[in-house]
Amino acid sequence: MRKVYLDHAATTPVHPKVLEAMMPYFSNIFGNPSNLHDIGREAKNAVEEARTKTAALVGAKPEEIIFTASGAESNNFALKGLAQANAQKGKHIIVSQIEHFSILHPAKSLEKSGFTVTYLPTDKEGLVNPDDIAKAITRETILVSIMHANNEIGTIEPIEDISKITKEKGVLFHTDAVATTGWIPVNVQALGVDALSLSGHQFYGPKGAAALYVRKGVRIRPQIEGGIQEEGRRSGTENVPGIVGLGKAAELAKTEIERRMSYLAPLRDRLQKGLLDKIDHLVVNGHPAKRLPHNLNVSMWYVEGESMLLFLNMEGISVSSGSACTSRSLKSSHVLTCIGTDAAVANGTLLMTLGMGNTAEDIDYVIEKLPPIVQRLREMSPLYEDMIKKEKVR
Amino acid sequence: MRKVYLDHAATTPVHPKVLEAMMPYFSNIFGNPSNLHDIGREAKNAVEEARTKTAALVGAKPEEIIFTASGAESNNFALKGLAQANAQKGKHIIVSQIEHFSILHPAKSLEKSGFTVTYLPTDKEGLVNPDDIAKAITRETILVSIMHANNEIGTIEPIEDISKITKEKGVLFHTDAVATTGWIPVNVQALGVDALSLSGHQFYGPKGAAALYVRKGVRIRPQIEGGIQEEGRRSGTENVPGIVGLGKAAELAKTEIERRMSYLAPLRDRLQKGLLDKIDHLVVNGHPAKRLPHNLNVSMWYVEGESMLLFLNMEGISVSSGSACTSRSLKSSHVLTCIGTDAAVANGTLLMTLGMGNTAEDIDYVIEKLPPIVQRLREMSPLYEDMIKKEKVR
Repeated sequence: MRKVYLDHAATTPVHPKVLEAMMPYFSNIFGNPSNLHDIGREAKNAVEEARTKTAALVGAKPEEIIFTASGAESNNFALKGLAQANAQKGKHIIVSQIEHFSILHPAKSLEKSGFTVTYLPTDKEGLVNPDDIAKAITRETILVSIMHANNEIGTIEPIEDISKITKEKGVLFHTDAVATTGWIPVNVQALGVDALSLSGHQFYGPKGAAALYVRKGVRIRPQIEGGIQEEGRRSGTENVPGIVGLGKAAELAKTEIERRMSYLAPLRDRLQKGLLDKIDHLVVNGHPAKRLPHNLNVSMWYVEGESMLLFLNMEGISVSSGSACTSRSLKSSHVLTCIGTDAAVANGTLLMTLGMGNTAEDIDYVIEKLPPIVQRLREMSPLYEDMIKKEKVR
Repeated sequence: MRKVYLDHAATTPVHPKVLEAMMPYFSNIFGNPSNLHDIGREAKNAVEEARTKTAALVGAKPEEIIFTASGAESNNFALKGLAQANAQKGKHIIVSQIEHFSILHPAKSLEKSGFTVTYLPTDKEGLVNPDDIAKAITRETILVSIMHANNEIGTIEPIEDISKITKEKGVLFHTDAVATTGWIPVNVQALGVDALSLSGHQFYGPKGAAALYVRKGVRIRPQIEGGIQEEGRRSGTENVPGIVGLGKAAELAKTEIERRMSYLAPLRDRLQKGLLDKIDHLVVNGHPAKRLPHNLNVSMWYVEGESMLLFLNMEGISVSSGSACTSRSLKSSHVLTCIGTDAAVANGTLLMTLGMGNTAEDIDYVIEKLPPIVQRLREMSPLYEDMIKKEKVR
């Protein structure tokens, strides 16, 4: 059976070149980078080389990159660390309602410790309005956090427009670029942000290696304390092979990014067109143009997403019904709720994210397999039956 | 040139069987454990199998194991997470002065947020007196954190005696077992602790994979929030290969632990005897009997530790002057200060930690190479010259 993995937003396989780069650092060059002897120094050099490569991918200076263990850690660190370190200036934070839960939950925690948080809505395509940010900023505001692109619906936010406002108002600006890094150009100077989260396993690097960019001069309070690693900003023995892998993935992404975009967008469009042609009552979520090139998020009426993905799984097709981080919670996506998707249709959502291993044949296979599954499931739905009857009456 | 790595307390190489176990999970079984499709499920199963193995090593139930990214994260999580989740009962914490900085620094942070912390001294051999704990506990005390063994001087603390007291008083008890796990038996039931930190790269597992044991029913506040991973207690996509490696390292440790102890203790004793015989004005730090089998920490008068380790490095011998986590800070060890070591001799400290790859020939090589280095360095020291003159006068 054909195997089609369309869940690259959940995680990607480690690129063979990335794994090759990591291999020496498990059992041979295994030192602790903090040690002063040769074995430690070799490990330290590898970490610093990876830092340079990671920085280069996002247009940062190496010393502005703090390695972490996950995008979630980077987001938690950014929100709590920046808020706590700058609380003497004010205690107001602005985020959007469609941020990842690794931003929203820390925001809730900060509220419990005396901060106030404004949760901005988006429009129906998932766009944050920069004017809303300008209006929400008060003299108490210290931090704005808006994601570069949404991990579910793929909408790319107007980060450059927002950063003009935050700069003018003297407010720190963090962006969660976990969904974008490696898929579209990400440059901290062009974006104008003070902090940015990225995660290796989202773009062919290993799980367990991620980073937070913090602009030089910006104060952040360490969340994992105790050691001198990462200039005292994040303690714990460095995950040397993981960091080397992240560096290699960053290097690959930098050279391949144009090719990735030009390969994936037409493939995604082919999938979108195929499904729109063959399945009625299907809605494409997110912005039609300002969208990640490899993202397709669709909602179908009268059908349940979980059932669809289990049937697709039986055909060798791996997709998600939404964010991997909440897929076991069986709740409706907070992103779809925010953009105003009716709960009934939100339940019938599939998130398909393509990768460089996908071919046109893979896409055609999905276009062939999904419609009969949807039809079969709809035939079991009383709501669908009612709808058909009503349509006939009309 | 012979290469002798005597810095296993800083980090260990990944065991070939551990690396072999990890390999399929980078590029083949690469799924996100949160996903419901087959690729995600295979990854989830691997994580749960590793959880069972890690739990088995320390006598815990699988659901009591929370995977983290480092021993430092586990320690931060334990101290802050347990304190914050139980603050309604009281706000007093007790730790020892020789804890790792990943306990001491979070303790300082907690002080800033309204907790009070008692920092207990130890005796000259690094032992915490359980009576001191009993006396320090007040009605406000909610948490005691005492390490299982000290990572620098190797002293094994009377955890069982302390846990009798904490149980009687209804106080939570965490132990940092990062230095002991994989080297001596560690069993949460026998130790009687409520929480325990361990780290994979300290016992032939990979860097980037560690764990915190939290006894069932004990409340802990998540420090990395947002996802449903680890039952909502620690968010972020699981480092699947790292976790699989930790599980395999735990499995190996469980079967090999007796052999490790019986192999390493005589080798360490050989090193200790050889150095005591050949180098005068040398002090062995830590407890003579209650000590990790692979640990030797010695301080030498009239010589500077950093210079010694650089000369040893030129002979192919890797050792440390103290904890890897602070080795670049060039400060005197807080552990040696606590046990009352004179600052002058503390500066001449070498921490040597053996591993299963070391042979008797390696040890004899160190016994041959170190004394002339010490002699050469001492001859350059004015303090040493003074001492020799005084001895002659006497």
